[in-house]
Formats: sequence, C-alpha cells, structure tokens
Amino acid sequence: MVPHNADCSQSVPRSRANRGYGRKVATTRTRTVAAAPAPTVPTRFQSRIGRIPIRFLRPQQPENRWPAKAYAGEVVPFSATIFREGHDQIGGVLVLTSPSGVETRHGLYPGAPGTDSWHTRALVASPGFWTYRIEGFTDDWATWLHNAEIKVPAGVDVDVMLAIGLELLERAAPSTAVTDAAAALADTSLSPTARLAAATDPALVSHIAAHPLRSHVTRSEELALRVERSRAGVGSWYEFFPRSEGAKQRRDGSWVSGTFRTAAKRLPEVAALGFDVVYLPPIHPIGRRFRKGPNNTLDAGPNDPGSPWAIGSAEGGHDAIHPELGTIKDFSYFLARAKKNGIEIAIDLALQCSPDHPWVTEHPEWFTTLPDGTIAYAENPPKKYQDIYPINFDNDFEGLSREILRIVEYWIGVGVTIFRVDNPHTKPLHFWEWLLHEVNSRHPEIVFLAEAFTRPAMMQSLAAVGFQQSYTYFTWRNTKLELETYLTELSSETSDTFRPNLFVNTPDILTEYLQFGGRPAYKVRAAIAATASPTWGVYSGYELFENVARPGSEENIDNEKFQFKPRDFALAEENGASLAPYLRRLNEIRAAHPSLRQLRNLDVHWSGDDSMLVYSKYTAGEFTATGEPDAVIVVANLDPHSVRETTVHLDPTRFGIEPGTQFAVTDLITHATYHWGVDNYVRLDAFTEPVHILRVEYPKGNS
Amino acid sequence: MVPHNADCSQSVPRSRANRGYGRKVATTRTRTVAAAPAPTVPTRFQSRIGRIPIRFLRPQQPENRWPAKAYAGEVVPFSATIFREGHDQIGGVLVLTSPSGVETRHGLYPGAPGTDSWHTRALVASPGFWTYRIEGFTDDWATWLHNAEIKVPAGVDVDVMLAIGLELLERAAPSTAVTDAAAALADTSLSPTARLAAATDPALVSHIAAHPLRSHVTRSEELALRVERSRAGVGSWYEFFPRSEGAKQRRDGSWVSGTFRTAAKRLPEVAALGFDVVYLPPIHPIGRRFRKGPNNTLDAGPNDPGSPWAIGSAEGGHDAIHPELGTIKDFSYFLARAKKNGIEIAIDLALQCSPDHPWVTEHPEWFTTLPDGTIAYAENPPKKYQDIYPINFDNDFEGLSREILRIVEYWIGVGVTIFRVDNPHTKPLHFWEWLLHEVNSRHPEIVFLAEAFTRPAMMQSLAAVGFQQSYTYFTWRNTKLELETYLTELSSETSDTFRPNLFVNTPDILTEYLQFGGRPAYKVRAAIAATASPTWGVYSGYELFENVARPGSEENIDNEKFQFKPRDFALAEENGASLAPYLRRLNEIRAAHPSLRQLRNLDVHWSGDDSMLVYSKYTAGEFTATGEPDAVIVVANLDPHSVRETTVHLDPTRFGIEPGTQFAVTDLITHATYHWGVDNYVRLDAFTEPVHILRVEYPKGNS
Repeated sequence: MVPHNADCSQSVPRSRANRGYGRKVATTRTRTVAAAPAPTVPTRFQSRIGRIPIRFLRPQQPENRWPAKAYAGEVVPFSATIFREGHDQIGGVLVLTSPSGVETRHGLYPGAPGTDSWHTRALVASPGFWTYRIEGFTDDWATWLHNAEIKVPAGVDVDVMLAIGLELLERAAPSTAVTDAAAALADTSLSPTARLAAATDPALVSHIAAHPLRSHVTRSEELALRVERSRAGVGSWYEFFPRSEGAKQRRDGSWVSGTFRTAAKRLPEVAALGFDVVYLPPIHPIGRRFRKGPNNTLDAGPNDPGSPWAIGSAEGGHDAIHPELGTIKDFSYFLARAKKNGIEIAIDLALQCSPDHPWVTEHPEWFTTLPDGTIAYAENPPKKYQDIYPINFDNDFEGLSREILRIVEYWIGVGVTIFRVDNPHTKPLHFWEWLLHEVNSRHPEIVFLAEAFTRPAMMQSLAAVGFQQSYTYFTWRNTKLELETYLTELSSETSDTFRPNLFVNTPDILTEYLQFGGRPAYKVRAAIAATASPTWGVYSGYELFENVARPGSEENIDNEKFQFKPRDFALAEENGASLAPYLRRLNEIRAAHPSLRQLRNLDVHWSGDDSMLVYSKYTAGEFTATGEPDAVIVVANLDPHSVRETTVHLDPTRFGIEPGTQFAVTDLITHATYHWGVDNYVRLDAFTEPVHILRVEYPKGNS
Repeated sequence: MVPHNADCSQSVPRSRANRGYGRKVATTRTRTVAAAPAPTVPTRFQSRIGRIPIRFLRPQQPENRWPAKAYAGEVVPFSATIFREGHDQIGGVLVLTSPSGVETRHGLYPGAPGTDSWHTRALVASPGFWTYRIEGFTDDWATWLHNAEIKVPAGVDVDVMLAIGLELLERAAPSTAVTDAAAALADTSLSPTARLAAATDPALVSHIAAHPLRSHVTRSEELALRVERSRAGVGSWYEFFPRSEGAKQRRDGSWVSGTFRTAAKRLPEVAALGFDVVYLPPIHPIGRRFRKGPNNTLDAGPNDPGSPWAIGSAEGGHDAIHPELGTIKDFSYFLARAKKNGIEIAIDLALQCSPDHPWVTEHPEWFTTLPDGTIAYAENPPKKYQDIYPINFDNDFEGLSREILRIVEYWIGVGVTIFRVDNPHTKPLHFWEWLLHEVNSRHPEIVFLAEAFTRPAMMQSLAAVGFQQSYTYFTWRNTKLELETYLTELSSETSDTFRPNLFVNTPDILTEYLQFGGRPAYKVRAAIAATASPTWGVYSGYELFENVARPGSEENIDNEKFQFKPRDFALAEENGASLAPYLRRLNEIRAAHPSLRQLRNLDVHWSGDDSMLVYSKYTAGEFTATGEPDAVIVVANLDPHSVRETTVHLDPTRFGIEPGTQFAVTDLITHATYHWGVDNYVRLDAFTEPVHILRVEYPKGNS
C-alpha cells in the first residue's frame, strides 16, 4: 500500500558502480535486461514517481510515440530532471545499453543552478536500437561533506559530524585511501580541522568519485534510441541530372541525351570535390502527353525532354529506366563507378504519374476518377499540372502500398541505398510510417530523405515516423536572427526527431539572397550549410554562380527540369569563375574536423554587428579518433555587399577552454592565424572572404 | 500489413455528427466506450499515426504521467495539432465524456495560420474523471467548395466541378436545403455561377455545418481530465492565528490566549469581507523545549506562546488540539460557525515535530538518530532549528505513512476539508503521491494546498502528483515584465498541472515591494492577486498595512509566529486607515464576474509605459449563468510612488469585440465610465487609485 518501488539500491551491483562524473565509467559484457524494480505496491496504487524523482529524459521525441533518433558516431547529449526533497546532495548516472547488450554507465553533471537538470554526452558508435535509463540517488558522502565543511570549522557538532563521516566510510568500497581516511577521522589526537582534512584527501576524493556512497537509487523508465548508420546523419550531397552530363546539341538544334555511361565520367570530379552522395532526379521514362517545354511552357516540342518528375510512358513506370539514359545494366555500371569513387547514389522516389504511366490503364483505382470519367490531374486551383496525375491512396491502400514497396525493394535489389522522396507531404503520413517500417526493418541501412517544404507539423511528423533526413527551411533563413534561431532549433530542440540536410539550392529554389547577393552570397551560404549541419547539399550549377531566375519565380531560368543543360565546369575553374575550389575546401574541412560531423554540438555566440553570425562546433577529445579536442568557430558576414567590422564575444567554455585563456585560431580558408580570447575584433570583407572558418588550436594536453 | 486502422468513419453514428464549429453541438445520454478502431494490421506492425494525424492534445500534463487537471465550472481550452497531406480541407471535433458518461461533441476551429492547431473551449461542470478525444476528418464539402469557387467563375472544369458537388450532396443528411441545392446545381438552364450559388445558400451552409460531409474520420487516443470541486480552483483565502483573535494581555504582561470560541467571533467579519476560506496555522499543542521567543529569539520566556509549527507536547501531537485554543468540541463549534458564514476552514499539515512530540519517544525510528544517540534537529548549516525535529521517511516509510494517513482521516472525520501543507518539498515526493491518492480516492472533495517555495521542478511535480493548489512565486514578481511573463505562464503553460493560490503576504513573506511601497503597493498587489487568479489569499494584518520588517529579514517584525497579536480592525476602518473596504470590494467584484473565477482566460495587452501592466479576463456568454459575456480589463500602475500616463493598446478580439468597435468600460472601484476602443489614454495616480478594474459593457445581444 505504501510505495517502496523506488528504492532499488540492491538491484545495482557494486561492480557496476559509477566511476566518475561526466565520463564513460565502466563497461560490462553481459546485457542486463531493463527490469523495473519488483513492485511491492498493490496494483490498486502504483506510484508513478520514484524515491528520487526523475523526469523529462532526453533524447526523446515529443509525445514519445516513436524512439528518439541518432546516427552511428554521434555524440548524443543525455539529460534528465532529477531532484529530491530537502537539502541532501544527489547524483545521477546514465545507463546506456548498446544493441549487442553492452551496458555502459556515465556519470551525470548538474546543469544550470535551479534547473535540477543533469547532463552527460555519450557516443553511440554502432547502428541499431539502443536503450537508456537514468539512475538518480542520494549522494550520502557529498551530503555529509557539504555539512561537515560548514559545521566542523565553525566548531558546531564537531564530534557527531566526524562520527557520521566515519560511519559512512564503513560503507565505502575498500581501499587504502578509505583505511587511511578512516584512521585520520578517528584520530582524536588531531585537531578537528585536521581530522576533517582527511575527507578531502585527493586519493579518497577520487576513490569516492568512482564509487559514490549512494542510497535511494531510483531507476527511470527505459527509453529506446534508434541509431542509424552514419550516412543517415552525415554527408555531402551533390545533385545532377544524368541526362545533362554529356548531353550534346546537334546542328539542327536537337539533343543527344547524356546517359549513365556519360554521367559516370563526371563522378570522379564530384568525388574530388569531396561529395559522397550524388542524388539523381527521377531516372524513369518520361510521359509525352502534356509534356512541359522549356521554362515550364505548355507546348513542348519534339526535342524537349520533359520533366523527369512526369514519370511513366509506354516504356514503363517507376521500376523502369528512361531509354535515353540507358538500360538497367548501364545504371548498374553507374552505381559501380560511384561506389568506386566513394559515392553513394540517391534516386528519387516521386509517387506521381504522367498520363502515359502504365498504372493509368492497369490500375485506374490508384488515381481519382472524376464524374466525367477522366482521371484528375494535379492542380492547385486555378493552376493545372496536366502532365501529372496524383496518386489516390484511399481507394486501394493495400494494393498500392504493396506495389510501392515492391518498387522500393526492386531498386534496393539493384543496389540503391538512398531514396530522396519527392513531396512526401502530399501522401498520407500513415503510408510513410508503414513503408519506412517495412523497408527499414528488413534493410536498416536504407536512408530516406524527405523533400517536404511545408508547415512544421507535417515536416516534424514525417521525420518522426521514420524519414532519416529532411530538407529544411534553411534556404529561406538568411538574416542573422533567423539563422541563429533556426540553427539552434535544428541542433537542439528538434534534434531527437529531425535531421536536417541543408541544401543551398535545388532546381526549384534559387532564393533572392542568391539571385541578388552576387558571388559572396554563394560562398556565405555554402560555408554555413557545410559547417552548421553534418549533412549539406548542392545542386549542380551552384559552383557556376547560376543566379538568373525565371521572372516572377524562385527558380533558375531555362530550368534543367525541362531541358538539357550541359555545363563546362573545367573551363569556369580555369577562368577563376568557379566556386568549385571553395566547395572542395569546405568538404576537406568537414573531413578533417569531427566536430563538423556532429548535429547536436552547435553554440551561437554574440557579435556586435547585426550581419555577423557567429557559432562554434565542438567535440571533446574523449569522443574523437585522435583523442584531441576539436572545435571550429564560424564567423560569417551575412551582408554580401559590404565590409563589416565588429567584436565577437565568445563563451570559450562551450569549446572546452577557460574564459581567461588566450588561444590561437587558424582560418582554414586563408590559413591566417589569430590570437583570440573572449572578445575579439573581426573584419570580414564580403568581396574577398566573407566567412572565417576557424580551427581552435588547443594547448598540448588540453582535452 | 497495410495500416487501415485509421479510418473509422463507420464508427461515428451520424446522429452524433458535429452541428457546428466552436459550439457545444450535441448531447447523448449513453456512454460510448472509447474503443480503438478494430485493428486490421498484423501485430508486427501497428501504426502509431492515423489517417488524419492528430498530435499534441491539450489539456495534458507534460510527460502525460498523470491526468491533466481542471475544476468544476472551469472553461477548459482544448486543442490539438491536426493536419493531412495535400490541400484538402479538414475539420476536427472534441468528444468530451463526463464522469456520468454523457458524451458531448464540440466543433474545433483552426488556430493561427501555419500552426495546424485546432481549438475549442468547453465547460466541465461536475467533478470526477472526464475523458476526451479529438476526431479529425477530411471535410469533403469544404474541399469541393474551396476549389469550385475558384474554378467555376474562371470557367475551368465547370461541368465536372458541378457534378462533383451534386455527388457530394447525395451523401448529405436529407433536408429541404439539400434537395433545393441539388436541383439548382443540376439545372443546366441556369448559368454555372447561378448553379454554384446554390452551394452557398444560407440554409444549405448551416445544414452542412451541422452535418459535415466527413471522410477519413480518425480518433485520437482518449485522455483523462481530473476535474475537482470548484474550491480546488476558486477561492478567497484569509489566514489568521486563532490564538490572536480575542487574545488579551494582563496587567502583568502575561497573555490570555484567544480560543476557537473567541476566534469564531471574527468569522462573520471575515465572511463580510468576502473571504470563503480561513486558513489556520497549526492548532496542535506546541513544544516547550527550545521554544522560540519573540522575533525568533532562542530564549522564550514563560509567557511566550511559541511557534505553532513546533508541533507536539505532552498534551499530544498532530491529532491533538492546543489546550489554550480549546477542545475538539470547541474546534467543532468553530467549524460549524465557519460553515454558517459560508467559510471553509483549512488547517495546516506540518509534518515536523517539536522535541516534546509523543512520536519522539514512541517512534524514534521516524526521526534521524545521530551517532551520539541524539535525534537530529532541523538545520541549514550553520543555522540550527533546535525546536524542530524533521521527520525521516526512509526508516519506516510504511508505518509513518499509515500514521499520517490516519491523522488526515481523523481531521476529515472532524469536518476539515482543506489542508494547507507546510513545506511539502522537504518530504519525499512519492509520499505525497501516495497520501493524496489514498485520501482523494476516498474523499475526492479534500483540497491540499502545497506551501512549497522552491525550484520549478519540485513545485510543478508536487502539483503533478496531486496537490490541488500551490503557493507561487507571485510575491516576488513585481515588475511589469515579471508579472506579464508569470501570469501568462500560470494561466496557460502550466495550467494543466498547477493551480496558483496568489497570497499577497504570509507570516513568512513581507516583500520589499510592500515594505517600501506604502499603501498604494498594498492596493496594487491585492488587486492583481484577486483578479489575475481565481484563488488568492491574504494574511491577517495586510489590511492594516503592516509593513515593518524584522531588520535583515523578509518577515514582519514582532512576528505573530512567536507572539500574540490581537488587532483592532474596526478602529482602523473607522479611522480610514484600513484596506478592508478595498479587499471587500475586490471580493465583491470577483463574486460578480465569472471571468475572474477562471484560470485559463488571461490575456496580456500592451501599454506604452514600463510600469503599466494590462491584462483582460474573458468568459463568453455561452459559459456564463446569465448567458451574457463577461470581461474585466485590469490596468495597474505598478510604480507605487508616482502618477503614470500612457496608451493602452487592446486586442479586443480577446474579449469578443471586433477591433473597430467602440465600447464602454466601467471602473468597478471608482464607478467612472470611459469610452474605449483599441488605443486608450490611461492615467493612474498611485496615491488615489493605482489600479483600474474595468468591466466591459457589451452592446445588447453581443455574445
């Protein structure tokens, strides 16, 4: 009848006791099943809170309907609100269990005063379902020490306080330090102050830190953490249209399409730029009826290739390859060449059909038939998209879903490992939950990127139900306040659910900032995307500063969606008119800096100029391959038309440096070195280098 | 294998269909158990999201460990995030089930654009466990109408659009309006525009609003709402020490204590001031050992009555009555007199003991015994409170808990219905969860007020586990920004968990604002407490402007905790030196205005002066006994030393008035009337009336 379920101190074997605060402390090889403490409370009353209340665990998805997400190699911040009644000192431990059952214990350190929040970070190295719980406890030694250090010097209750200390040491794990301290505490020939001093002997302090004297040990619930492969969270994406790569125009104005064979020739160059994913718009046959001509006109000529998103023709649908690109064998060749260059290929899963798609005749029930017997085309009244039939999921959900699953499995069979999903927010959310579950439970390595640009509820929910990555609002966040707010949101608030892929442009998005910002704007946006998020992306042509929009639109003029667009990248680079070297350097910097391959480690710092954005990314030495700490500070002049000078005010504790310390920073673009501290003068000229990407040089031995 | 569980449109009988947006629409007398739709999905995959995603329901406690809270008579805002793929229109309904099984349906209206949030308010009239769920659906008629009204006038797809409209009408609930509209839609002798006009015929619009054409009807989970009696949320509290009421000093300096009989004589006066709860500090025998003297001194003389919180003596413990106050019979008399005056008595549950408490000898295991064999007294090193032994819950949790439950049950048996709990944050949280569950499951009418002034995690968790009311940080929130933020937090963010009792002062708290703000400060704080929260409280002496603190403390000098303090309220009032008439007026205003008895209806408005706080409270006519809307606007000059003039900018839509409308407001203190609109000049002189409490005068017929 009385809740005793909270105290399970007996259930935590001493051998797994916490060995220190804020560090990984012990590893065992057997899996301890996360059993709740045996309930001694009758079922008619089950306490929902433990002896030491533990609440608000993170990582956790809002509502806790789906497990929180992370990726292999990610350093995940764990936290909880832990508190107790009265003034006794408490502590907390994260108990993390890997998919193979290895349990590690990580001491928690307290957050800001008054918050009762406790924190640590831990590396989740391998994919799979991890679990974690938090243990809270009363720290008896710390409680006593806190009181004794006030009372004994003040001459209050001296004997009793020292006697309590002795009693506590009897509970401590045996060690010489304990024996010595007990002897001193008991030595009445010494002064009280000298006896108490034994309690703070460094050997004892470190022994007790490793084996705290805990009581009221309370376990939180056990939560799951879905850890996916590294590519789910880290990557440099490059988008190109294979038909443009190697396309040639004949004298009569007609075109010879690029193919997978010609496009494969570009892969080494893309790899040399440091990109590791190449995303291809749909590679399927393109419909002829209502095909769109150049610049989205309605009257396509016989030479116009049409939009790859108008999928399906007599040659086949979503499981076919556009004959002009080649055959399935050519595609396999392309995949193999990509692999050889260290590149993964992402194909487009665009669930919509041209009027010529085989489904239109074979499965009219997968579309919406109007009262006049015609099939409804896509529209956003009064706009019509007659080249596209949207799919209707509600007539034959099961049949349609199975066919889509079959198609996805088909491409997986061919060797595709990443799907960029076109407009997932125009298909039912429960369909995605089902499809991604079906695919990922059989193929956990498959990555789905959601191309949804819509309201936050749908964006977040697509990520919640399983999309590994998402396009974001990044392209429309251009001011300092917008970027500070959004980058902070992405790296903290939404990070248990939503992984951003910061594309700087797409065939659909050429923002005003790029249209009117000149070349500095292209540098600024690429530098921020590449450093602020572990996954970023570029659509081909960005390196050529293609910045002319179709009037009244936010798209490039002569859009590649509707025509061939071969580009001479080499010539541009020769002429110094290419951003490619800059992009290459950004990817080199990403490769060299583990902190840039983390999502949840971004901190915004202050600057005195409303166009100067400052943030840092930091990974402690315990989490890097070299054991050295890694930090990158980015200072970006967001005004692409001016020179800005300001003071940058850093909180160096955010990257492991004491506020009073001077440290060197090296600009990874210009290789200049500066000596920095808390307040630093910065001048950035948009017309030379608008962005500082600064490596923090740690003194030797600092971690 | 494919999730079909989302569509349960067949499970919602048409007879209970939504009859309109934002209004209570239908009542049935049979309880429909909130069955989840029959799963057609194999157990290996169970969708967590429905056909129409519904997320983030409120009211809901953070973490959803305990049901959200409300009180009988409360108008509760319900909301959820509802959305779907694509562009189709959607709708939502709140389905609310009362403890007796009466199910009502309330149409939801959309929140701010882009939020996908849907809202309504509903009255929970009776105490008990209510449940609610949200239903989301595709609104087929609205979808069609939206498209038809764009396409038909533009001459696009006219025939098909009109044909679709006709098809939809075949699904509509039969009515003349439907028949007429169908005839017109089908009448090819009319122009397309005229045919479409039939779809917006007022009779049809109202018929369809009452019987929407819904598809994909999806139910959310069913959540519980714990509705407690009205007093849990609404009350005017008055604290006095019964021993002071009627206390007399003899010529020799010794005192005759007031008793329950003499204190009862004050009850009619307190009732006349409009207070409906009188809270008494502990009424139990007071210990002698280490008794505190006047002003918390350590050397109490024989005439010093001691602190009532030093509970227990040879005369008894927590189930006994201090002999100087009378007998249990006298206390019963006092309770009866209170009841006759419309007053409930709250007693103090202070779980601590004087060294003379019977438990000290009978149950030493309920305390902490030190190595020297003594029992630990309360301390906050180096401060000592030797008159108090704190209880140790960990030695014999079960025995102690049972004894405390017995004591609470004893006082309930005597007729006590409210317990003000002293320092609950110094006792284990799981103890409170258990105790309040035990008591409230047998006596749901019992109200517990948590006197915790500590960090947010504990404050919120005490409320979460069951405390009906809580003391707050209100006394320390004095600036405009502090009050705007805190009153907004209390009325929205935390309102599903935490019910504030805004005491303006206590025997422990005489803030600097009151010490140095003069009489205007006393008016300002009382006016805000009485209007911003449905529960507020005053400790005796506030009406006499007692504002002298013991030097270096935040308490009254010559504190009543340690001495008798009879006061001549009548004389002060005669001399015009009493705030009593103002307090009486505040309680009259509260009684007259239903909007002031609501927690979740406060809106802050803008003013141009950083000392002028503006907020409104509003209850729509559908929720008031008279059927008339009720709104009160409060404008407070927080600077007690000056005259302030400014512009007050109102959003009158927050109290049901269109922005362009002029309306009269009547000052309920001065009875002056003003003609107001959106922007209004206000001048408040701290030395006359520092606060406007304005009734909004609604034009006839407005609701």
